[in-house]
Amino acid sequence: MRNLLLRLMYNGTAYHGWQVQPNGITVQEALQDAVEKIFGVRENVTGCSRTDSGVHANDFCCNIRTENPIDCYRLVAALNAVLPDDISVKSAEEVPFDFHARYNCVSKQYVYKVWNTNYKNPFLENRAWHYKNKLDEAFLNEQAQQFVGTYDFKAFCSSGSSVEDTVRTVKSFSVERNGDEVLFFVEADGFLYNMVRIMVGSLIEISENKIEKDKLLDIIKSGDRNLAGRTAPPQGLYLNKVNYGED
Amino acid sequence: MRNLLLRLMYNGTAYHGWQVQPNGITVQEALQDAVEKIFGVRENVTGCSRTDSGVHANDFCCNIRTENPIDCYRLVAALNAVLPDDISVKSAEEVPFDFHARYNCVSKQYVYKVWNTNYKNPFLENRAWHYKNKLDEAFLNEQAQQFVGTYDFKAFCSSGSSVEDTVRTVKSFSVERNGDEVLFFVEADGFLYNMVRIMVGSLIEISENKIEKDKLLDIIKSGDRNLAGRTAPPQGLYLNKVNYGED
Repeated sequence: MRNLLLRLMYNGTAYHGWQVQPNGITVQEALQDAVEKIFGVRENVTGCSRTDSGVHANDFCCNIRTENPIDCYRLVAALNAVLPDDISVKSAEEVPFDFHARYNCVSKQYVYKVWNTNYKNPFLENRAWHYKNKLDEAFLNEQAQQFVGTYDFKAFCSSGSSVEDTVRTVKSFSVERNGDEVLFFVEADGFLYNMVRIMVGSLIEISENKIEKDKLLDIIKSGDRNLAGRTAPPQGLYLNKVNYGED
Repeated sequence: MRNLLLRLMYNGTAYHGWQVQPNGITVQEALQDAVEKIFGVRENVTGCSRTDSGVHANDFCCNIRTENPIDCYRLVAALNAVLPDDISVKSAEEVPFDFHARYNCVSKQYVYKVWNTNYKNPFLENRAWHYKNKLDEAFLNEQAQQFVGTYDFKAFCSSGSSVEDTVRTVKSFSVERNGDEVLFFVEADGFLYNMVRIMVGSLIEISENKIEKDKLLDIIKSGDRNLAGRTAPPQGLYLNKVNYGED
């Protein structure tokens, strides 16, 4: 029995997130369909995380345990030939049998993309949050440093989550401008439900004077979701890097 | 009577190019429809160039002569509210009455985007040429310098063009890599039909050893379309900058 690690890139616009569910098509289901076409049997694919409806991935990892002897390079081409255009397999490699895409993950980085000018961008429809008021990325970057550290991030978790341990370690947070795009990069050992989107929404609310500056740490410590900002929309969010501690 | 210069950005995937034609919807027609909704009368919109089916624009200029007194900033918002999502107006400004978007143009820059790795990119479908064999951007950049200068570019013009004067001045040509993207930037005082796409296709054929290196100048001088390379596909091409010599 082999264990294969696949790295994917996908445009999540058409999908109800990663995880198979009864109400709509998901990336996991589309991938399992493609794997079934190649392998002739349906294999379970284990993802590194759930992503929400409309969320994208520049790098998403999953593993498949299979008896199929196919060469990894050929598997990439074969899967890409049968997958829909909005899902791509970037690479496949054989990993130890006990490797698990979620449990072995050391950290993940998300990037949240804001299109920050008065006019819409035809190339970023469903791929960024169009926020018209000019953001001060240096100020937001400074404010975002309050998120870095090990805290109970319950105040930055949407209700409806069943997770019990809400302590996470945010390793880094940076806010950068690239022309009219403002990019929020967050790396952590794990993320709560909607955590990045609520962090971004809270930073935006600081810029709107709805949340006082230098108060994010107080909000974290309050554990009160109502004190944090609104949830930024899904289409700006990309899972950007999945780190298994190889380097 | 006022004369307004609009700067547009559009995703050309769904359009039969810029110019109104009987066989399909064009960007010019969509814009004229939007202008008619705002102004209440149909005005003619003059574009800086024709772009082909499936070609995009990061910057496309056009002018409209109108009696309508609308404020330019409000016009941008009003047009963006009624235009389809794949066309955006970036700015509007009043220009002298004799200004003509095409005749006053001093130079234009196109960028041609190649996605250059073995797997497809779900975010660049219809937005780049997927070319799998690794390109040497430094070598192609060196070869591309043969295009710079004032020449009769007849060999780099598709048949079917009715243009008589095929002399153009290419001001600069650079080939750059950005991760797995290879970008071809070309600035000229004007372009012949499919000129950028044939130039890019010829550079690719040098990398494939189908065209000998250091022979592009001979091909230009031959005036023979058959000696140049194939026409690169339209979806990689973006009109990137339109220069009216203001700076």
